[in-house]
Amino acid sequence: MNFSIDRDILLNQLIHIQKGLPVKTPLPILYAIKFEVFSDYIQLTASNSDIAIQVLIDDKSLSVQKTGKVAIPGRYFIEIIRKVAASRIEIALQEERLLVIRADRSEFKLKLMDVEDYPDVDFLDLNEPVVISSEVIKQIIKETNFATADNEKRPILTGVNFKYADNNLYVVATDSYRLSQKNYKLRSSLKSFNIVVPNKSLDELSKILDHTHEDIEVFINPNKVLFKLSKIWFQTRLLEGTYPDTQKIIPSSFPTVIHFNKEELLAAVDRVSLLSPRDRESNYNIIKLTLRPDQVVEISSTNTEIGDAKEEVIPTADVEGGLISIAFSSKYLNEALKAFTSSEITLNFAGEIRPFVIKGNLDQDLLHLILPVRID
Amino acid sequence: MNFSIDRDILLNQLIHIQKGLPVKTPLPILYAIKFEVFSDYIQLTASNSDIAIQVLIDDKSLSVQKTGKVAIPGRYFIEIIRKVAASRIEIALQEERLLVIRADRSEFKLKLMDVEDYPDVDFLDLNEPVVISSEVIKQIIKETNFATADNEKRPILTGVNFKYADNNLYVVATDSYRLSQKNYKLRSSLKSFNIVVPNKSLDELSKILDHTHEDIEVFINPNKVLFKLSKIWFQTRLLEGTYPDTQKIIPSSFPTVIHFNKEELLAAVDRVSLLSPRDRESNYNIIKLTLRPDQVVEISSTNTEIGDAKEEVIPTADVEGGLISIAFSSKYLNEALKAFTSSEITLNFAGEIRPFVIKGNLDQDLLHLILPVRID
Repeated sequence: MNFSIDRDILLNQLIHIQKGLPVKTPLPILYAIKFEVFSDYIQLTASNSDIAIQVLIDDKSLSVQKTGKVAIPGRYFIEIIRKVAASRIEIALQEERLLVIRADRSEFKLKLMDVEDYPDVDFLDLNEPVVISSEVIKQIIKETNFATADNEKRPILTGVNFKYADNNLYVVATDSYRLSQKNYKLRSSLKSFNIVVPNKSLDELSKILDHTHEDIEVFINPNKVLFKLSKIWFQTRLLEGTYPDTQKIIPSSFPTVIHFNKEELLAAVDRVSLLSPRDRESNYNIIKLTLRPDQVVEISSTNTEIGDAKEEVIPTADVEGGLISIAFSSKYLNEALKAFTSSEITLNFAGEIRPFVIKGNLDQDLLHLILPVRID
Repeated sequence: MNFSIDRDILLNQLIHIQKGLPVKTPLPILYAIKFEVFSDYIQLTASNSDIAIQVLIDDKSLSVQKTGKVAIPGRYFIEIIRKVAASRIEIALQEERLLVIRADRSEFKLKLMDVEDYPDVDFLDLNEPVVISSEVIKQIIKETNFATADNEKRPILTGVNFKYADNNLYVVATDSYRLSQKNYKLRSSLKSFNIVVPNKSLDELSKILDHTHEDIEVFINPNKVLFKLSKIWFQTRLLEGTYPDTQKIIPSSFPTVIHFNKEELLAAVDRVSLLSPRDRESNYNIIKLTLRPDQVVEISSTNTEIGDAKEEVIPTADVEGGLISIAFSSKYLNEALKAFTSSEITLNFAGEIRPFVIKGNLDQDLLHLILPVRID
C-alpha cells in the first residue's frame, strides 16, 4: 500500500470518520480506522457499538502507487494529519505492520493492527429509501433531540422516535418531564415504520451534515438505520422496545393562550433563574409564571436562603382566556424556546396542574410541552 | 443606602473585584463584597486567604441618594448585573439586611450578610514604592510564571522570586526541572528586597492589568505586597521561606550553540510529541534532539507501543561548536519558546547531561533553562 494525497482533503474526511471511533471498547481493533486503498479511491471505515461510518475518498489529488488495506490506530493518525503543516502527504506500508507517513521534513512511523481482525460491517441498503434533504434532517434533530432523557433509567427515552404513516413523519423526544414533537410531510408513498434512534448517534450525524447540502437516502432496517450520502455512509443501531404513546398527554384545548416575543421571554427566564431554588429530583431551577389581572405576566422565583427575583413581561398580543399561575423548570422552557425559529411564540395553558404547550408563529408543525411542578 | 449607576461601569469593576472572592472559605462573610457608598464614590472590597482587592468607583454616572455600607453576596450579585440588559441600575437597602436591585422591568431582592462581620483589610502603603508600568509587570509575569511548580511539594517554588539589588530587578521562577529568569533595569534607588509572590496571585493581577495602561506603585511589606493603581488596589500575601539560589545552576559556557526560527522549532516539537512516551514521574512527553554531522537538527521520539516520529529542522545560522544529542520534556521547551517575543532563538548546550539554555535575539534579559533527562 502506497499513496499520496493533499493534506486538507484527507483531514476533512478523517474528521467525519473520527465520529465512528469508540471512546472505550473491549475490542481494541475498533480503535483503528480501516483503510482500503484501491487504484483510484480509498474507503475508510470506523465503527463502535452504536455507529458505523464509511467514507469514500476519490479526490483528484489522490495518487495511488500501490493498492492494499490496513488498520491504522485512529486517534494517533488523525492527530498527526492535523498537526502536519505540509500541503501533501505520502503514506506507505514499510513492513507488514508498519506505516510510514511523510510530509515535508516530518516522518512518522505507526505500528499497525491486523486488518484481518477488523470486523465486517454491513451497511444495509436493501429496501426502498426515504429521501430527505440534509437541512431538513439537521433541523428536525435540532428541534427535538434536546428533550431526550440523558440517563438510562428508561433506555428507550434516550432516543428520538421517528414514526411514518400516511405521508407524515412524526418525530418525538421526551424525558417524561417535557416533550418535543415535530411533524413533517414526506412526499412519497412508503411502507410505514416506527423506530427509535439513539440521541448520541443523531448528535454525531448532525455534525457530519453540517458540511453537506445533499439529499440523504435513509434505509430503515429491522434494528439499524443507514443514512447514505454520496461519499459518506452513516449507520446506527436502533433502540429496542416500544416507544410510549405520547399523543394522549398533549392537551387538546387551552383555556389561556399568551403571546410573547421569544427573546424577551428568554432573557427574563434566564435572569429569574439566577436566584431560583433547585428542584430536589432534577436539580433544575424552578420558576413561577403568573398572568396578573393587569394582563402583565410576572415571572418570579423565591429562594429562602438567597432572595427573590421578579420580572415583568408584557404579552405581545391580547391574552386569550383567564388568569393562570404555574411553576416549572426554567431549563425546560429555555431549551424549548431556543429550538424555535419563530420570534413570536405562544404559551398555551390547559390548567395549573396540566402540561402546557409552546408553539411558534413560524414553526407550524413544531410543538413543545412542559410538565408543571407543584410549589407552595 | 441607595444609589444608581450605569450597568456597564458597575459590571467592569465587579469583574475586577471578583478576583478577590474566595472559591471556598471557612469564613462565609468573605463570600460577600463589601460596598461602602459615600456621597460621590463607592469603595468595593473583596478578600480571600491570598488576595485582597479594593476598587474605587467615582464614575460620573454614579448618583448617590443615600450613603451607607453593606456586605452583598458576591457571586449572586455579579451574575445578576451580568445578566441584566438595562443600561441603568438602581440599588437600595429595603430593610436592614435586604437589598433591592431594579433594572427596567427586573427586580431582585438579595439577603445581605452583616457588614460588621467583614474583617478589616489593611492595604499597606507605608514605605517608598517601586514605580513600574502595567505593561512591564504583565510582560515579566508572562515571561516567567509558567515555570513555577504547580504542586505543593516545595511550597516556595509555587511562587515567583523578585529580587532587587543595585538598580536591577531579578525575577526567577522554577519547578526544579526548568527555570525562567528575567532581569529588568529599574531607574530608581531603592532599598533592596527579596520576595516570593504566589503564582496564583500573579495570574489574577495579570488579568486586572489587561485593562489598564497606568504606572503601578508597588509597596513591599514584610509579608505582603501591594500593587496600587489609581482606582484599584491589589494586595497579596507573600510566600514564607528562602528561595533557592538558582544562579549557580546556570552554566556559564556553552560548547554548542544552535540558531533556530522559533515557529519552525515549535511546530516540529509539537508534532514529534504526538507519539512520544511520557516520563513516568512528570507525565510529560520526552523527545530527543540531535545535531547530525550534516548540521541538520533531528528531533525525534520513540514509543515502543505506538511508533516513531522524526522531524528535521535546519538551523538558521551556522552551528557554533560540536555535535550534541540530548533528551528532555517537550512541554518545557514548548512553554519556554512561547514566552519569547523573538522570532529567532538559540539553544545553548553545556553538555549532554547538563541543563541547556534558551535565549532570544530580541529578549536580551530573558533566559530559560531546561534540565535534560537520561534515556536509552
